[in-house]
Amino acid sequence: MMDATKHTSPRASSVAERFEAVRAASAALCETLETEDYVIQSMPDVSPTKWHLAHTSWFFETLVLRDAIPDYQAFHPRFQWLFNSYYNSIGPQFERASRGLVSRPTVDETYRYRAHVDQQMRRLFDTSLPGGLAPIVELGLHHEQQHQELMLMDIKHVFWTNPLRPALRDDAAAPSPHEAAPLRWFEYPGGLCQVGYEGDDFAFDNEGPRHRVFLEPFSLASRCVTNAEYAAFIEDGGYDHHDLWLSSGWATVRAEGWRSPLYWEQRDGEWFELTLGGMRPLDPHAPVVHVSYYEADAYARWAGARLPQEAEWEVIAADAPIEGNFVESGLLHPTVAPPPGESPSQLFGDVWEWTSNAYLPYPGYEPPVGAVGEYNGKFMSGQMVLRGGCVATPHDHIRATYRNFFPPYARWPFAGIRLARWTAS
Amino acid sequence: MMDATKHTSPRASSVAERFEAVRAASAALCETLETEDYVIQSMPDVSPTKWHLAHTSWFFETLVLRDAIPDYQAFHPRFQWLFNSYYNSIGPQFERASRGLVSRPTVDETYRYRAHVDQQMRRLFDTSLPGGLAPIVELGLHHEQQHQELMLMDIKHVFWTNPLRPALRDDAAAPSPHEAAPLRWFEYPGGLCQVGYEGDDFAFDNEGPRHRVFLEPFSLASRCVTNAEYAAFIEDGGYDHHDLWLSSGWATVRAEGWRSPLYWEQRDGEWFELTLGGMRPLDPHAPVVHVSYYEADAYARWAGARLPQEAEWEVIAADAPIEGNFVESGLLHPTVAPPPGESPSQLFGDVWEWTSNAYLPYPGYEPPVGAVGEYNGKFMSGQMVLRGGCVATPHDHIRATYRNFFPPYARWPFAGIRLARWTAS
Amino acid sequence: MMDATKHTSPRASSVAERFEAVRAASAALCETLETEDYVIQSMPDVSPTKWHLAHTSWFFETLVLRDAIPDYQAFHPRFQWLFNSYYNSIGPQFERASRGLVSRPTVDETYRYRAHVDQQMRRLFDTSLPGGLAPIVELGLHHEQQHQELMLMDIKHVFWTNPLRPALRDDAAAPSPHEAAPLRWFEYPGGLCQVGYEGDDFAFDNEGPRHRVFLEPFSLASRCVTNAEYAAFIEDGGYDHHDLWLSSGWATVRAEGWRSPLYWEQRDGEWFELTLGGMRPLDPHAPVVHVSYYEADAYARWAGARLPQEAEWEVIAADAPIEGNFVESGLLHPTVAPPPGESPSQLFGDVWEWTSNAYLPYPGYEPPVGAVGEYNGKFMSGQMVLRGGCVATPHDHIRATYRNFFPPYARWPFAGIRLARWTAS
Amino acid sequence: MMDATKHTSPRASSVAERFEAVRAASAALCETLETEDYVIQSMPDVSPTKWHLAHTSWFFETLVLRDAIPDYQAFHPRFQWLFNSYYNSIGPQFERASRGLVSRPTVDETYRYRAHVDQQMRRLFDTSLPGGLAPIVELGLHHEQQHQELMLMDIKHVFWTNPLRPALRDDAAAPSPHEAAPLRWFEYPGGLCQVGYEGDDFAFDNEGPRHRVFLEPFSLASRCVTNAEYAAFIEDGGYDHHDLWLSSGWATVRAEGWRSPLYWEQRDGEWFELTLGGMRPLDPHAPVVHVSYYEADAYARWAGARLPQEAEWEVIAADAPIEGNFVESGLLHPTVAPPPGESPSQLFGDVWEWTSNAYLPYPGYEPPVGAVGEYNGKFMSGQMVLRGGCVATPHDHIRATYRNFFPPYARWPFAGIRLARWTAS
Repeated sequence: MMDATKHTSPRASSVAERFEAVRAASAALCETLETEDYVIQSMPDVSPTKWHLAHTSWFFETLVLRDAIPDYQAFHPRFQWLFNSYYNSIGPQFERASRGLVSRPTVDETYRYRAHVDQQMRRLFDTSLPGGLAPIVELGLHHEQQHQELMLMDIKHVFWTNPLRPALRDDAAAPSPHEAAPLRWFEYPGGLCQVGYEGDDFAFDNEGPRHRVFLEPFSLASRCVTNAEYAAFIEDGGYDHHDLWLSSGWATVRAEGWRSPLYWEQRDGEWFELTLGGMRPLDPHAPVVHVSYYEADAYARWAGARLPQEAEWEVIAADAPIEGNFVESGLLHPTVAPPPGESPSQLFGDVWEWTSNAYLPYPGYEPPVGAVGEYNGKFMSGQMVLRGGCVATPHDHIRATYRNFFPPYARWPFAGIRLARWTAS
Repeated sequence: MMDATKHTSPRASSVAERFEAVRAASAALCETLETEDYVIQSMPDVSPTKWHLAHTSWFFETLVLRDAIPDYQAFHPRFQWLFNSYYNSIGPQFERASRGLVSRPTVDETYRYRAHVDQQMRRLFDTSLPGGLAPIVELGLHHEQQHQELMLMDIKHVFWTNPLRPALRDDAAAPSPHEAAPLRWFEYPGGLCQVGYEGDDFAFDNEGPRHRVFLEPFSLASRCVTNAEYAAFIEDGGYDHHDLWLSSGWATVRAEGWRSPLYWEQRDGEWFELTLGGMRPLDPHAPVVHVSYYEADAYARWAGARLPQEAEWEVIAADAPIEGNFVESGLLHPTVAPPPGESPSQLFGDVWEWTSNAYLPYPGYEPPVGAVGEYNGKFMSGQMVLRGGCVATPHDHIRATYRNFFPPYARWPFAGIRLARWTAS
Repeated sequence: MMDATKHTSPRASSVAERFEAVRAASAALCETLETEDYVIQSMPDVSPTKWHLAHTSWFFETLVLRDAIPDYQAFHPRFQWLFNSYYNSIGPQFERASRGLVSRPTVDETYRYRAHVDQQMRRLFDTSLPGGLAPIVELGLHHEQQHQELMLMDIKHVFWTNPLRPALRDDAAAPSPHEAAPLRWFEYPGGLCQVGYEGDDFAFDNEGPRHRVFLEPFSLASRCVTNAEYAAFIEDGGYDHHDLWLSSGWATVRAEGWRSPLYWEQRDGEWFELTLGGMRPLDPHAPVVHVSYYEADAYARWAGARLPQEAEWEVIAADAPIEGNFVESGLLHPTVAPPPGESPSQLFGDVWEWTSNAYLPYPGYEPPVGAVGEYNGKFMSGQMVLRGGCVATPHDHIRATYRNFFPPYARWPFAGIRLARWTAS
Repeated sequence: MMDATKHTSPRASSVAERFEAVRAASAALCETLETEDYVIQSMPDVSPTKWHLAHTSWFFETLVLRDAIPDYQAFHPRFQWLFNSYYNSIGPQFERASRGLVSRPTVDETYRYRAHVDQQMRRLFDTSLPGGLAPIVELGLHHEQQHQELMLMDIKHVFWTNPLRPALRDDAAAPSPHEAAPLRWFEYPGGLCQVGYEGDDFAFDNEGPRHRVFLEPFSLASRCVTNAEYAAFIEDGGYDHHDLWLSSGWATVRAEGWRSPLYWEQRDGEWFELTLGGMRPLDPHAPVVHVSYYEADAYARWAGARLPQEAEWEVIAADAPIEGNFVESGLLHPTVAPPPGESPSQLFGDVWEWTSNAYLPYPGYEPPVGAVGEYNGKFMSGQMVLRGGCVATPHDHIRATYRNFFPPYARWPFAGIRLARWTAS
């Protein structure tokens, strides 16, 4: 059982306590890695694990320590450049696609870099964190939680690229004894609604401003689409029928030779899937995961439904408890949905749910000034919104208003499908 | 003066009359072309002129004549494959990027193909157009009008690719004696509005269903951004400041080396631009044209404004007369905006106006069944909406509800910039 | 029957007469082309026909007229750049792969350019061709003959790219009533031999200096490999057995999906091939053509033989009459070899014969000074030598010492296979 | 000082002793590597160090142990596929360009694989090595020595790719106290010579058969070109003058932006170069290294000379002692040439010397039957011959007849320049 749980702490705790917990959780995720595993970049979208560990430290060093500590001595003079991800306002960046070509700093040195940053941050917490920097520290912690999820997504792709199919933890992805309840529909009247974050707790800039939006009557499915349901789509020729697909999706299907979700593999006529616990027989009742927006959209069309709008999802999720299968479960794999009660289940955790919305700014959105202004706003082009968090997300990281985003062809996130449909009004 | 005007006719005319007018207008656009010009595909997005002439005939042959005429004899057995653009439900297609590698059919044969189709269509009009095919003929005419605009866009790119910089018509792009009025803002309250087409005239499927949308208070600029205004953006380092750009836009600027709109060329410190009348000194008062969404968005950010939402644009344009500089003017180039009255001018014609909306289906949208279902719906991914038509659009082709779309990097359409901004409510 | 024959003249004729004959022969090759055919560049290695017509004129304008005529007025100020192929010492060049994107100058203008250059050259011949320029004129004529062959190679590829499979001349590639004699071997003792050009007639710089080379005893095949023999290689799995291929050849076979020579097409189990007379049933007795070096080498290995060294070929060809199937036959396609007498037949004409030699300089080779120094020497890397001329070569253009060269993957030349083998000494 | 020396042994030793020495030498080269360094593939031509260690073991397992030991139990069932480099006759291969994407087997497991193979081989030596396998074992040892050189070449490129510029051994590349003697020329009469291997010791198949070749009178330079001499070429605009370059070389210079040899870096106007001891000031007297054939050829042209033919080089080297700066020196970097005596110095060791010969088979060459037939023959296309070994070559691995080969653009081998020229006869 992974021990990330014990490192996360309630929101009420001090920022110093949260800092310790979040930083420890990153390291805990890596406990079972071999040194060699930290180095690999299996495709340009993936970063090596040691890069994630360094970059999350770079965030605190560059955006907090350099500002807070006069004459701050950087751990290494070139790390400001080497571990900058995409902050043009901070300076040029080492080429993203080459992150896996760099053997040094070693894993040990990377952990020493982390320890150095942790020590300096503790000194700051103990003495005099300048008031203006508190929000940046808070952002840095949520940033690191995002990278914890990326680390799990990325190492899974690294293991998939390896024909020997290694596992992160042999005890992960334990099979569920439950079956999925039949899919039901919950109807909602829509109308003029409010969405977006407003409040005093932490939220990313892209979650606001809170604003009104008009929704037609709609229905939401009671749970996410299961592996068995998705397998029926495959058996029905889902990947062969052009009319189910968006044009760019169909082009991708043919160019990439897609015949199933990423990580599925057929052996002697049976489907298996790669989990972070290794290759496992496909659980027909668990939610399908590692599908692209194109596949989610095609599946929905095949099923006579559609993907939800992000506002539809949010107004329903706003009333739901934030419960589900998060990283703290130690499963590291989506599992069977609990039966729904008065409203849809599985809204949070398990799989990110593709929405039908392009990732665009809310009315009145303005990115903050400075480097943190590059955090979200500049990516509002060519991507789709996903909602609800997944099994790789820390529990205290997710909200109903949280907007995740990926390009429509991305399959390595833990992303699945929630269906919606119009209701005759 | 080009004579396309005389071929277009009022909406009230019969479909047979409209057919004659639209078909003749396509040929009229080509009157000044050399045979060699018809053959060139200067980039994959561009099609050779003779391909446009053949494909628009293919539309009637494949979707009307084959259905309407028992034992219809195709003009050529391979044209159904050769001139299919993207209709998977009709069959496979000759590779798009290779359209410029095919010298035969010659231009003469292509015109004979057109004449054959025209003749068969006339027979049908004279006798017995099956009722179910009337909407397809109507669609075919609007389809051909779209290709008329594409022919002008494409031949302009062909001429740009040629270092000798030929002109389509020496008398096109005549300079305007007028100056642009200073930019003003018109404020609107927003609220719950209705957008989308509803009615009995022709509209594309993607323009409906008509539906409600909630708008925050907003302002629209009185006219499009001028060349002088855009030149100020360039002089202020617009193409050098990463913080003005979306991330994928900035990547494109650097990869492509963009320093100005497409077709601008600096000679001895003065800006010239390629028009369909050849290279001309830049008119500072005319609207900037041939900018991508990325450039439009960056310009708006630099100007302290934003691009309009398509619903904002539509609710204002719905009350405006459909007047402007269309293909019938013979200018073939955008010209100086007339001064605004009580509302913004230049909403129609001159330049397509980039909106801030990704091209997505309206609530309740369903594409029609069959081949025409591939016309619009499958392209609803990775593109942005543009509104209002341009100088290459036939006057009777445009509407307030008309939704055009291009990828955010496209620069060869006649696309420009209308600014908007939020109004404190 | 094509009438190129009547335009070529005996070597004894004056340079002015030869100029007229060679220039007229270029135009004669184009007599049956449509205007559209002149424009197409079906792959980067291919040039549009009108480019060939312009570039061969450019050669005389740039290397002769500009030097010979004070205040020479160029036909067009940008043609020096537009039609420069690869002469860096003359200046930069329009991008090669974009030659097919340029509709102007039109075909008519191109012929006017030719007429202008011809007129100026005639004035020069009539008055005062500076002595130093006579060798350049001579080079220009051989240069133009090389482009005549390229024009035929290139237009064949253009027609192949077109799924309608046009023909250059319906009367070309007339079938032969003859059968190929069984393949025999001629044995030669080798020893210390002399190869390379020495003399007072024209030869390219790369044909000298004449020098000694030691040859082991060898045998040469009596004729080129036939289509039937090559088809047996295919039927025996020639394209499936990695051990027959060079490593880079095998990689090419798989990447390109080669299963037969270029221009072969199977219809209902029968082989057809594209000729300049259109699609024709494969003549089993005619020599195989349009194979790469990789295929020639693999075939030879399969046949228990090898390709000849260029010196082996040359010492035998030096004693053979320069007779064969050249462009003047009007066949425009290789035909059945005449039966051999005391020595191998078909050494000249029909198909270029791949040798086992990389194209490298002879001992003591120095390229000439100036632009013409770029003619041959700088291409001595990455290419293989071919010998003997082909059916697209003018009769008076070929010699035993002539060294043609192409990259090992090139298939669009009229290239075939002559076998050789070592003889036990 | 590296301790590879002590592991190499005289040729007279038994194959079992040689096996121990060669295997130990591979491991010794890695003593100072970090685990992370073993994993990186910095470009497709480079292999990770752990791949080299596994593949050289695979050679013995696949070509010896599987044949010699009935019911041989492979160390891992997938390694036969995973570590096959290019032997199609053994089976398909894991994709070469993806060797750096595979973290498992770990470095420790790889060494266990080596130990397993070593143990099995020792059992074989102790008992019953089948007679037919002795030549394969011998080949395996020379194969492993080739990979020792590749390991050094490859890790150097890995370190170059890392902006932190690590060193393999801080004590490597010790500066020389000597200066290079001025370049002199040694004249040779040429004539009919014999080249190629003949004898009972080990040689690769591509070194024979021994055969006669006729050479024109020639001169060889007394030593390799120095860094100072090459720097003068750079200062004289060597990389700017097209007329010094082969056409494909010039295209490469412009496409890759070459301005100096690989691994050179200018800091404050001074040249430094990366060595396996880290960044070092350029020694003007040491031989230039890490130049491509294109650069060697261009330099020679600039210097009024040429590159030697491989036969010229061999007939002179055949009389020279096999002495020089090999891997056993521990320098791991080329050093200043000793002054010449009666003949050129530095023929062996320091840098591989590019010749002007394409890598082609000798007259009568036949590759052996079976998998080892894929060792050399199939690569005889598109590559140039290099002679003499380098500072990364084991001393007992090189011979006068040894033919190394690389593509003309390769710069990561330790390759340099020996000049030659024609002598008036």
